[in-house]
Amino acid sequence: MPLRATLALPALALALAAAAPPPGGTLADVDPFIGTGGQGHTFPGAVVPFGMVQLSPDTDTACVIRACYDHAAGYRHDDPTIQGFSHTHFSGAGHSDLGDILVMPVSGEAVLLEPGDAARPGSGYRSRFSHDEETASPGYYAVTLADARVRAEMTAGTRIGVHRYRFRPSDAAHLVLDLRSSLYDYPGKILWSSLRLHPDGTITGMRETRGWAPARKLFFAMRFSAPLTGHAFVSTEEDVPYKGFQGPGRGSDAVAERAGRALVARLDFGRLDRPLEVRVAISSVDAAGALANLAAEPGDFDAVRARAQEAWSRELGRIEIDAPTPMRRMLATALYHSLIAPSIAGDSDGRFRGPDDQVHQADGFTFRSTFSLWDTFRAEHPLLTLIQPERVNSDIVRSLVASQEASPHSILPVWQFQGRETWTMIGYHAVPVIADAYLKGIRGFDAAAALDAMVKSARYAPYGGLGDYMARGYVAIDREPEAASKTVEYAYDDWTIARMARALSRGDLAAEFDKRAGYWRNTFDTRTGFVRARKADGTFRAPFDPTAINYGSDYTEGNAWQYSWFVPHDQAGLFRLMGGDRAVIARLDRMFEFDTSKLDYSHAEDIAGLIGQYIHGNEPSHHVAYLYNYAGAPWRTQERLRQIVESQYKPTPDGLSGNDDLGQMSAWLLFTGLGFYPVAPGSLEYVIGRPFVHRAALTLPNGKRFTIVADGLDDSRPYVGAVTLNGRPLARSFLRHKEIMAGGELRFRMQAAPNRRWATGPSARPYSASSPPR
Amino acid sequence: MPLRATLALPALALALAAAAPPPGGTLADVDPFIGTGGQGHTFPGAVVPFGMVQLSPDTDTACVIRACYDHAAGYRHDDPTIQGFSHTHFSGAGHSDLGDILVMPVSGEAVLLEPGDAARPGSGYRSRFSHDEETASPGYYAVTLADARVRAEMTAGTRIGVHRYRFRPSDAAHLVLDLRSSLYDYPGKILWSSLRLHPDGTITGMRETRGWAPARKLFFAMRFSAPLTGHAFVSTEEDVPYKGFQGPGRGSDAVAERAGRALVARLDFGRLDRPLEVRVAISSVDAAGALANLAAEPGDFDAVRARAQEAWSRELGRIEIDAPTPMRRMLATALYHSLIAPSIAGDSDGRFRGPDDQVHQADGFTFRSTFSLWDTFRAEHPLLTLIQPERVNSDIVRSLVASQEASPHSILPVWQFQGRETWTMIGYHAVPVIADAYLKGIRGFDAAAALDAMVKSARYAPYGGLGDYMARGYVAIDREPEAASKTVEYAYDDWTIARMARALSRGDLAAEFDKRAGYWRNTFDTRTGFVRARKADGTFRAPFDPTAINYGSDYTEGNAWQYSWFVPHDQAGLFRLMGGDRAVIARLDRMFEFDTSKLDYSHAEDIAGLIGQYIHGNEPSHHVAYLYNYAGAPWRTQERLRQIVESQYKPTPDGLSGNDDLGQMSAWLLFTGLGFYPVAPGSLEYVIGRPFVHRAALTLPNGKRFTIVADGLDDSRPYVGAVTLNGRPLARSFLRHKEIMAGGELRFRMQAAPNRRWATGPSARPYSASSPPR
Repeated sequence: MPLRATLALPALALALAAAAPPPGGTLADVDPFIGTGGQGHTFPGAVVPFGMVQLSPDTDTACVIRACYDHAAGYRHDDPTIQGFSHTHFSGAGHSDLGDILVMPVSGEAVLLEPGDAARPGSGYRSRFSHDEETASPGYYAVTLADARVRAEMTAGTRIGVHRYRFRPSDAAHLVLDLRSSLYDYPGKILWSSLRLHPDGTITGMRETRGWAPARKLFFAMRFSAPLTGHAFVSTEEDVPYKGFQGPGRGSDAVAERAGRALVARLDFGRLDRPLEVRVAISSVDAAGALANLAAEPGDFDAVRARAQEAWSRELGRIEIDAPTPMRRMLATALYHSLIAPSIAGDSDGRFRGPDDQVHQADGFTFRSTFSLWDTFRAEHPLLTLIQPERVNSDIVRSLVASQEASPHSILPVWQFQGRETWTMIGYHAVPVIADAYLKGIRGFDAAAALDAMVKSARYAPYGGLGDYMARGYVAIDREPEAASKTVEYAYDDWTIARMARALSRGDLAAEFDKRAGYWRNTFDTRTGFVRARKADGTFRAPFDPTAINYGSDYTEGNAWQYSWFVPHDQAGLFRLMGGDRAVIARLDRMFEFDTSKLDYSHAEDIAGLIGQYIHGNEPSHHVAYLYNYAGAPWRTQERLRQIVESQYKPTPDGLSGNDDLGQMSAWLLFTGLGFYPVAPGSLEYVIGRPFVHRAALTLPNGKRFTIVADGLDDSRPYVGAVTLNGRPLARSFLRHKEIMAGGELRFRMQAAPNRRWATGPSARPYSASSPPR
Repeated sequence: MPLRATLALPALALALAAAAPPPGGTLADVDPFIGTGGQGHTFPGAVVPFGMVQLSPDTDTACVIRACYDHAAGYRHDDPTIQGFSHTHFSGAGHSDLGDILVMPVSGEAVLLEPGDAARPGSGYRSRFSHDEETASPGYYAVTLADARVRAEMTAGTRIGVHRYRFRPSDAAHLVLDLRSSLYDYPGKILWSSLRLHPDGTITGMRETRGWAPARKLFFAMRFSAPLTGHAFVSTEEDVPYKGFQGPGRGSDAVAERAGRALVARLDFGRLDRPLEVRVAISSVDAAGALANLAAEPGDFDAVRARAQEAWSRELGRIEIDAPTPMRRMLATALYHSLIAPSIAGDSDGRFRGPDDQVHQADGFTFRSTFSLWDTFRAEHPLLTLIQPERVNSDIVRSLVASQEASPHSILPVWQFQGRETWTMIGYHAVPVIADAYLKGIRGFDAAAALDAMVKSARYAPYGGLGDYMARGYVAIDREPEAASKTVEYAYDDWTIARMARALSRGDLAAEFDKRAGYWRNTFDTRTGFVRARKADGTFRAPFDPTAINYGSDYTEGNAWQYSWFVPHDQAGLFRLMGGDRAVIARLDRMFEFDTSKLDYSHAEDIAGLIGQYIHGNEPSHHVAYLYNYAGAPWRTQERLRQIVESQYKPTPDGLSGNDDLGQMSAWLLFTGLGFYPVAPGSLEYVIGRPFVHRAALTLPNGKRFTIVADGLDDSRPYVGAVTLNGRPLARSFLRHKEIMAGGELRFRMQAAPNRRWATGPSARPYSASSPPR
C-alpha cells in the first residue's frame, strides 16, 4: 500500500510557502509557551542559556508524585491560577522535582500563608490570571495577577533570578516566600529548611529535600529593592515530638531565623510608589555561595533582562532559519529548548556539590548538571557539539568525569541534576556523549581520565545487571528488569568506548569493548525477529507480547517493536538478522502502520505520539524513521519524516507530542528540520533525511558557516531529488561531521516524486560496524 | 544554734590524714567512673584534653527525651549491658544529645541488627559486661563483652577515636555500625544519614539530627586494620512514601552507598588472628574533613593511646596534689573533668560549622565549642585561665566571637555545641568569660571585636526579655519567664562589660553598662528581702513562694532562696538591702538549715544535692557558701565548705551530687580544695575559703609556680587560723589574680577552733562594686 495514502494532513498542516526571515531573527520566533500544555513539560519562565536558575510560574503544586505528572514543570497552560514563582524547573522532564523557593506577591492587609484552592478565589495566596495579560520571550516572563492586583515580571541571569512586582500604590505590598512548595511533592519530602534575615535586609535560607534526588540541598540569597517593614517566619509543621529550646523572639514575628520542615515567610514592604525588585541567587553549596553568586551578577531588573536577551540573541543566532512561519517558530523554539540543559550547577567561585553530597572545586571549568542522558545522548548532545563553543562541550565532559570521580560507585552520571544522582532510566549514556565529543575533536579535558571513567562505568557489576552482561553477554531478565533494553543499549555504549579507546591507542580496551558491542546479538531472537529478554538459562522469557509496555518489564518505556531497532552502530548487522533490506522495509512499514486502536498504553508515562508502534513522544523510536536509509530506501525516510513532523509538532502550547526531555524532542526536530540526524553518535555521521527549511545557516564553533538550502521546498515537493555538497553531487545518504565543520553548503533539490535511485546502493548507506570499513 | 551541731560526718568521711603523693602523680589518681552513677552524667570512655571525640560505651539509648536523663552521657554505671561504643558525649550535661556513630562488635554467624532488650540476653547485638573486667583511665577504656566474646579497648586523639577488638580466633568477627542510635532520642530525630564504602575499604558517612541542636550534621571516616570480607548497609526505615529510583546493587548487601533516616551496617571481617583496630575521625564540616582529620592523627591503637596518655600527663601535671587519698582522687578526677570541655569542634584544616549552619575558616585559632556557659562562667573558665596556656583561653574567646559573627542574631553563644546553638539556660555568660580573660591579661584576640560582640549580645532586644530589661531596668515576668533570674544575671554580665569597656577606654560603654549593672536592685523586694519577679506594671508577681521550683517560673532551675544571692559583683550592696552582716549571716544559716523534708523537687532536673535550700547539685548555689566572707565571717564559710565537700562529693561512681555540667561541679571542688574560689569572675579576685589539700602546686601558664600549703590539716583542724602569702601575713579573705600569677606560696595554718577575728573588717572583704574602691 502506498505510504502516501496514510499521510492525512492535519488542519494545522505546514504551509510550506516561501517567506522571508522575520525581523529579530531566530530570537523573535521563539515561543516559550510551546510545550507548556499537553505533556511537553516545558516551562514559560525566564532562563538564560544553560542557566542554573529557571524562574517560572507554578500554577499548581498540590499533588503527590505521579499525580503531579501534568505539572512536572510547575506551569500548566490550561490552569486558571498562579501559585507563585519558583526558581528551578526542568525543561520537559518526565519524572520531576524542583520548584524551589516559591515567591508570590500579595496586596492588602490580610495575607494568607496557604496557597488555597484554585477553584475558590481568595482562599489563599494564589491568584487568577489570563493568558491575554501574559507574555514570555527568552529570558523574560510577565503576567498580571488579578487577585494579587500585581503586574509580575521575571528575568534571569546565570545563577540569579530577578522578580519585578508592580503593586498598586494604595495597596500594602507583601511577598509570601513559601519553602514548603515543591514539584512532585509527597509527605516527608522536605527534610529540613531554614530562613535567616540579615541586618542589611538580605534573606538567606536553604531547603533539603528527599525528592527525585535524595537529600538535595539548595541554598538561596534574596535581596529587595525596598526595605522590609515587617516580617514573619512561620513554621506550620505539626506534630513535632521535640521542639528544643526557644530561641530569641516570641512567636513568628520579627525573629531573625527559623528552621524546620515547613516554613513560610510573610514579608512586608508597606505602600510602594515604585516596583519592588527581588534579586535571588541559588547555590547547591552553601549560603555564602548563594551570596557570592548574587554579587557576581549585579544590576537591576532591566540590566539583568538586557543581559539575558543579549545572551539568547547570541546563542539563538548560531542558527539562521528561513522557513515557513509555523516551522520557523517551531524550530526557533526547539533551538531555545535545546539550550536550557545541561544546566550550570556550580557556583561562581567554582565550588559545586557532587554525587557524594560533598562540595568540590571545579578548577578551570564550570560544573554543569541536569543530565537526562538516556534522552539526550541521541540528538541533544550532538547538536551542542555543532552549535556550542568547544568550551561548553568540554565543560560537559569535565563535569561528567568530575561526577564519576566523586561518585560513591566511581561511575558516570545516569540521570543527574544539581550534582545529585537519581538513577533514572538505563544505560551508561554519558559514555557516547564523551566519545562523540572526543571523536569530533573536542578537547580541553583529560581524555585518559575520561576513558577510564567510561570503562569503570561499563565494568561496574552492581549496576543494572552489568555483572551478568559481562559474564553471559546479555542482561538476564530473571535477575534484572528491562533486560532486553539494557543489553542493546549497553552494546551501543560499549561500541563508543571501543571507538574512543582506539583513538587513544588503547587497543586492549578497543578489543574488549568491540566484543561487547556485539552483545546485542545475544538478546535478538531470530525466530520472532525481535530483540527479546533472555533468562540466565539462555532461554527467551515467555510468554512474549511484542506490544506490551509495562514498568519493570523486558523493555524500558517501550516494547519489542521499538527496541528491536536499537543497534545504532550496526544496523546492517541487525538487518541481516532480520532478513535483509526488503524484510526490513516491510517491517518498518508495519511498525508505522500498526493498528494500536485496541492497545491501551495510558498507564505508562511518556508513551505518547503514537504512529502505529512508532512512538515519537518517547526516545526509543527517535532514530527509527531514518533507518530506511540503511535499507537503501531514503525516499521512505523522507515520507516518514513528513508524517512525523506534521503529526507530532505544532507551534502551540500543546505542540509537543511528548515530554521535551531536556531538549531531545527539540533537538530531533532541529536536526530533522535541517535535513540530517545523528542516528549513531560516535560514528561521526549524520543520516540525511529531508529538510523542512528553505534555508538555514549554522555558525559553527570554529567560526565557519554551514548552509543548508532546499530548492523548491513546498508542500507539493516533499522528496529529495538530488543533493549537492559545495556544488558537487552527494550520492550517499549520510553526511560526515568533518564536512559540516569545514563549512560550505548542503543543497537539496526537492521534488514531488520520490527519487528511488538516489543513495540506495551499499556504499551510499550510513555507517554500520559490521559492514566493510569505508 | 552552733553550726557544728549540724555537721554529722557521713560514713565515707574524708580521712584527713597525712599521706605522701602516690607514684604516677595526678594522672594515676583520676577515676573516670566518678560521676557515671547518680546524676553526675559523666562518661568513662576515652578522650584527650578538650578532644572533639569522646569515645565511650553507651549502656542504653532506648529512651525518649526526659526519660533519657539517667543516660545523658550514654553510660550508666548500674546498667548490666553495653549497647555499643559511640564517639561523642557530653561530660556531665543536664540536657543531652550526641552518642554519634555507634559501633559494636559481634561474634559468630548470626548478626542481629537491633540492640535488643537488656533484660533478654541474645535478643540483640548488645552484650552483658562486668565491672570486674572493666577499666578506665584518662584516654583509655577497656571492657570484656561477655555475650560478644570480645575484649574491647578504646582510646582517642583530638579528632579521632580508635577501637581495638580482640575476637576469639574461632569466631567470625563482625561490627555493627548503627547510625540510628542516639542519646536523648525521639521519633523523627534523625533527619538524614548516609553510608559510603570506598574502594580502599574506608567507610565515610554522616548523620543530620534534629536534637538538642537543630539540624546538626556530623560526618565521619572509618578505617579498619583488617579487610572487609563482606558488608550490608541496611535501611530499617518504615513507611517511606517515596523511595526514588533504585541505585546500583540489589538489596542491602554489597552496595557502595546507602542513605536514609534509619541506617545500620553489618561489617564482616571473617576469622581474625589478631585484634581488629578501627580508626574513626569525625567532622562537623564534611566527609573530606573527617578523612583529613583521620590522616592528621596517624598511628595504631598503641601509638594513639600513648599520645593520649602523654597529653593527659602534661595537662593533669599542671596541678600537683598532695592530699588524703579520697580527696586526692576526687581532685584529680575533678581536674580531669574540667579539661574535657570546651571541646575542639573545628577540623584540622581550620574549617568549622558555625551557628548559621555554614562552614567557616578559623584563621590562626582552633575553633572550640561545647559551651555550657550558664554553668561554666562561674569556676570552670576561671580555672582554665589559671592552668591552661594563653593560647587555649584566647582560642575560647576567638571561638565565641567567631560564633557571634556567624550568628543569625549577631549574639554570642548561650549553650552551644559543635558550633550549633541550643538556646538552653539564660544570660549572656560568654560576656563574663571574655571579660575575665581579657582583664586577666589574656590576649591573642581582637579585643575591640570581642567588646562589640559582648555589647551586641547585651543589647539584643529579642533575646530573653532584654527589650524590657533595657527599657524598664528589669525583665517583666508577665512577658518573659524566669524574669527574676534573668534580671540579676544580666546585671552581673553587664558589670563585666563595663569593666572590660573601661579597660579599653570605652567610657561611654562603661557608663551604660555600669548603670545596667545596678538593675539587680529593680528586682529585689525589700519587703520580703528576696529577689523577686516583677511585672511590667512594676508590681511583684504574687502569690510568692520562695521555695517553689518550676520550669518557666520566676526563677531558672531554682527559687528565691538561691537567686536572692546572685549579685556576685556587689554583695555589699545586696547585703545592705538585706539588713547588714548580722542579718545576712542569719539568712545564710537559715538557707543551709532550711527544713526541706516537706518539699518535693523531684519534678525538676538537676535539683539535687540539697543542704536545706542550698542546692549544690545545681549552679545558682555555687558561690553562696563563700558569701560569709563578705559579711565578715570567713570562719562560717570554712564550716560550710567542709559540710558541702563531705556531703556532696565521693570518690565513687555516684560521687557527684548533681550533673558535672561540663566541668563546673569539678572546678568548684578543685578551687575549693585549693582554698579559694572565683565568686565574681571579672573582679580579678578569689575568695578564700579553706584548703582540703596538704599541699598543691600549680604550674601557671607563664611558667611560674604557685603553691598552696595547709599546715596541720586534718579532720580535727577544719578552720583557718592564719594565712601567709609568700611568708607575709594575709589579713584579707581574698586573693588577687596577679598574686597567683606572680608565683609564690599561699600557706594556711589550720586549727581546731574558728578564728573569728581573721579578715573580718570591711577592708578585708572581697570586691563589691558599691563599696569604696581598694
